Amino acid sequence: MGIRLDLTTCGITQGQRNTFTDNLNDALAKLDSGKEAFTGWVDVPGIVTSEEMNDIEKTAEEIRAKCDLFIAIGIGGSYLGAQSVMDALFAGDGENGPEVVFAGCNISGAYHKKLLEKMDGRDCCLCVISKSGTTTEPLAAFSILKEKMEEKYGDEAASRTYAITDKEKGRLREEADELGYKSFVVPDDIGGRYSVLSPVGLLPLAVAGVDIRALTKGAVDLMSDEAGKEAEVDYALTRVALSMSGKWIEVFEYFHPELHFFGEWLKQLFGESEGKEGKGIFPASLMFSRDLHSMGQFIQQGKPMLFETVIIIDERNDDLMIPESAGAPLAGKSIEQINDCAIKGVIAAHTKAGVPVIKVHVPVMDAYNMGQLIYFFETSCAISAYVMGVCPFDQPGVEAYKQEMRDEIARIDG
Amino acid sequence: MGIRLDLTTCGITQGQRNTFTDNLNDALAKLDSGKEAFTGWVDVPGIVTSEEMNDIEKTAEEIRAKCDLFIAIGIGGSYLGAQSVMDALFAGDGENGPEVVFAGCNISGAYHKKLLEKMDGRDCCLCVISKSGTTTEPLAAFSILKEKMEEKYGDEAASRTYAITDKEKGRLREEADELGYKSFVVPDDIGGRYSVLSPVGLLPLAVAGVDIRALTKGAVDLMSDEAGKEAEVDYALTRVALSMSGKWIEVFEYFHPELHFFGEWLKQLFGESEGKEGKGIFPASLMFSRDLHSMGQFIQQGKPMLFETVIIIDERNDDLMIPESAGAPLAGKSIEQINDCAIKGVIAAHTKAGVPVIKVHVPVMDAYNMGQLIYFFETSCAISAYVMGVCPFDQPGVEAYKQEMRDEIARIDG
Repeated sequence: MGIRLDLTTCGITQGQRNTFTDNLNDALAKLDSGKEAFTGWVDVPGIVTSEEMNDIEKTAEEIRAKCDLFIAIGIGGSYLGAQSVMDALFAGDGENGPEVVFAGCNISGAYHKKLLEKMDGRDCCLCVISKSGTTTEPLAAFSILKEKMEEKYGDEAASRTYAITDKEKGRLREEADELGYKSFVVPDDIGGRYSVLSPVGLLPLAVAGVDIRALTKGAVDLMSDEAGKEAEVDYALTRVALSMSGKWIEVFEYFHPELHFFGEWLKQLFGESEGKEGKGIFPASLMFSRDLHSMGQFIQQGKPMLFETVIIIDERNDDLMIPESAGAPLAGKSIEQINDCAIKGVIAAHTKAGVPVIKVHVPVMDAYNMGQLIYFFETSCAISAYVMGVCPFDQPGVEAYKQEMRDEIARIDG
Repeated sequence: MGIRLDLTTCGITQGQRNTFTDNLNDALAKLDSGKEAFTGWVDVPGIVTSEEMNDIEKTAEEIRAKCDLFIAIGIGGSYLGAQSVMDALFAGDGENGPEVVFAGCNISGAYHKKLLEKMDGRDCCLCVISKSGTTTEPLAAFSILKEKMEEKYGDEAASRTYAITDKEKGRLREEADELGYKSFVVPDDIGGRYSVLSPVGLLPLAVAGVDIRALTKGAVDLMSDEAGKEAEVDYALTRVALSMSGKWIEVFEYFHPELHFFGEWLKQLFGESEGKEGKGIFPASLMFSRDLHSMGQFIQQGKPMLFETVIIIDERNDDLMIPESAGAPLAGKSIEQINDCAIKGVIAAHTKAGVPVIKVHVPVMDAYNMGQLIYFFETSCAISAYVMGVCPFDQPGVEAYKQEMRDEIARIDG
C-alpha cells in the first residue's frame, strides 16, 4: 500500500507527456547522478546516519521529559515541513507530549509578545533552526526568547536550548559550541524546502511525538519503488504540459483542515523551485469544503487558467454520525461519508466545467504515508523544474528583498 | 484619519483608468440606485436598525455572562467575515470574554470530534448562521453539536442556542420559532460575502468583545467620504487595467499574521464576485515575512502575471525590543521597526522587478479602521466586477458542486 496518482481527469494524454522525453532523461540523469548541488535529499537513507537518528530520538525523549512547551525557531524550510507533518498527524498540540509551537517565522511584535506570555508558568525548551544563524526573522526571535529563557532558568537556559545549524561554520554554530547547546547538523547538500526528512524536520517532529522512523520509511519505500518513480514523472510532465496549454495556476486542494500547512509547504516547494527566469506555475492552496464557499465559484466559472491537484485521504481515522435531527438525506450517515460525496461532487462538477483535475490518493493519514507524500512531491517538483529548464534548488530572487531590507535597516541608524 | 490608498507603484496611470469612464458610470449608477438585487450592504446605516443593534449588544452581553465557549456555525460569508475581524483585533481568544470558535465550515469528522471534546467542562452557547438552514456543512455540524448541547443542558439547551436566519421562511426559521431560539435576521438584500456588517457578523463579533458600533462607524464614515469613494474607484479601475495588461493574479499581502483570515475573506469577496463568465482576477493571499521564504522567489522572478495589494498597518499596538545578543544591526531596534524595513524592502525589491504594487495603509488596527477596510474592499469589488461586465452579487457556479454532491449522497442510499 502507498500513495496513488490518478490522472484520469487531468486532460493530458501519455502522448503529450512523451513529448518531453529528452528533457526528462536529462532531468532524471541529473537527479540520480549524485553530483548536482543540493540533491542530498534524493537518497533518503543517506540524509541521516543511524547514529544521528538514534541521537535525535534520544534527545527528543529528553526534551519530552523536561518541558511542556517546545518552541522551534525557524522560517521557510526550517519551519513549514515540520509544521505541516505535525498538523496532518494531530501531533504537537500538547495532548500527548509537549506543545510544539514555532517562532521567528514572522516579524510580528504581537505574535512574539503573546508567545512570551505563554512561556510564563510553562516548562520550556527552545530550538533554533538556521543554517547561518544570521537570517533576520529567526535571529530576532531567538534573541528575544533566549532572554526570556535566561530570566526563567538562569545558567540552566543553555541546557534547554537546542540548535540545528551548519556542521562547522557560522554564527549559530559558534554560539552552540561556545555555550554548549546540544546541536544537530543542517546538511550541506540539502536546501531548506527539501529538508524536512533531515534533522531540521525530524527533531521537532520527534519531540511532537511523530514516529520519525515510519515517516522516513515511507520516503525510502517510495524511493525504491519503480511504480512510484513512474508516478512522479507522470505528475511532473502532466503539470508541465498543462502549463504549456495555458493553465498557469495549480490549486492544491484538500478536504481535511489538518492539511492546511501541507498546502503551505507545497506552495513553497513548487513556487520557490519553479518560479524563476520568468517561468513557473503559480501555486495556490484551498481548504475544501470551506473554500468551495469562497473560491469554488472562480474555479467553476472564472478565467479558465487553472488546474487542480486534489489530495484525497481514502480512509479516515476519525468520524462522527449525523443525528436524526439533520433529517434526510444526511441523518444516519457519517460526516466523512458526506465529505466523500463532497470530494466526488467537486471533481465531477469541476471536470464537467473543463478544469483539469489531478488526484493524489493517500490510503490513510499516518507518518508512513506522509513520508511518501513528501518524497513524491519533492521528486516530482525537481523533475518538473528541470524539464521547464530551471534549477530546482536555488532561490536567487529571495536575496533581492533581503538586500533592500538590510539597506532599510541601515537607514534607521542614519 | 482613515485608510489610505497609495497607487504610486501600481504601474497604471490616471489616463488608463479614465478609459473605463462609461462602464464606471454605469457601475456607480447601479450601486447607488438602491434598486439592484443584493445591494443592501451599500447603505450601511440601513443594514441594521437601531433596535436590532441594541438587541445584538444586549444578547451578546447575556451570552458573555453565561458561557466561556461560543460556537458559531456557518460557512462562507456566514463565517469568514466574523473570523477575520475577530482575529485582526485579537478578540474571541478567550482572554477577554468567551472563546469564539467556528464549526460547520468544513465536513471533517476529526475537526468536529475535537470540538465535542472541547465542549466538555466548558459553559457553551451555540449560534447557527444560515439563510436557509439547509446548507450541508452547517446543517450536519448543527445537528451534531445540538445533540451535545442537549446532553449537557437538557431542556435548557434551546435557551443557549441562537439562530441568524431568514426573517420568515426556511427550515432554520421554523425550528427557531418552534423551539424558541433567540434569533436575528439575515437581510434579504445582502449576500453572504457582503454580510459581515449585518447580524451575521455583528452578533459573533459582539460576543467576542469587538466594538461593533466603532466597526460600523468606520464603514459609515467611509461611505459618506468623497475621497473614500474616489479611492474605491481608483483601486477598482487599477485592478481592471492590470488584469487587461496580463496580470491575472492578485496577491493580497500583509505583514501581520493576525490578518490571515482577512486575506481569506478577500479571496472570497473577489473570487466569488468576479470569477464568472470566464472572467476574473485570481485572488491569492500571502503572509509576510513568512511567505517571502516560500513564494517570494516566484513573485520576484517567476512568470510575470501577478500584481500585489499590500495591506500596511502604519502604527502597531504591540512591539518588543530586540536584545543586545542579536548583535548589529538588529540589537536595540524594535521588532516592528524591522518589520517596517521588511515592508519597505519588499516593495522596493518587487517594484524593481517590475511587479505592480498597490498599497492600502491602515493608520492603526482597530474596529473603526477594520470597518473602513471592509467597506473599501466591498465597494471596490462591486465596482470592478460591474466594470468587467459581470454581476458582483451572484454565484451561479457554486450550485454545480452542490448538485453533484447531492447526487452522490443519494447514491449512498442506493
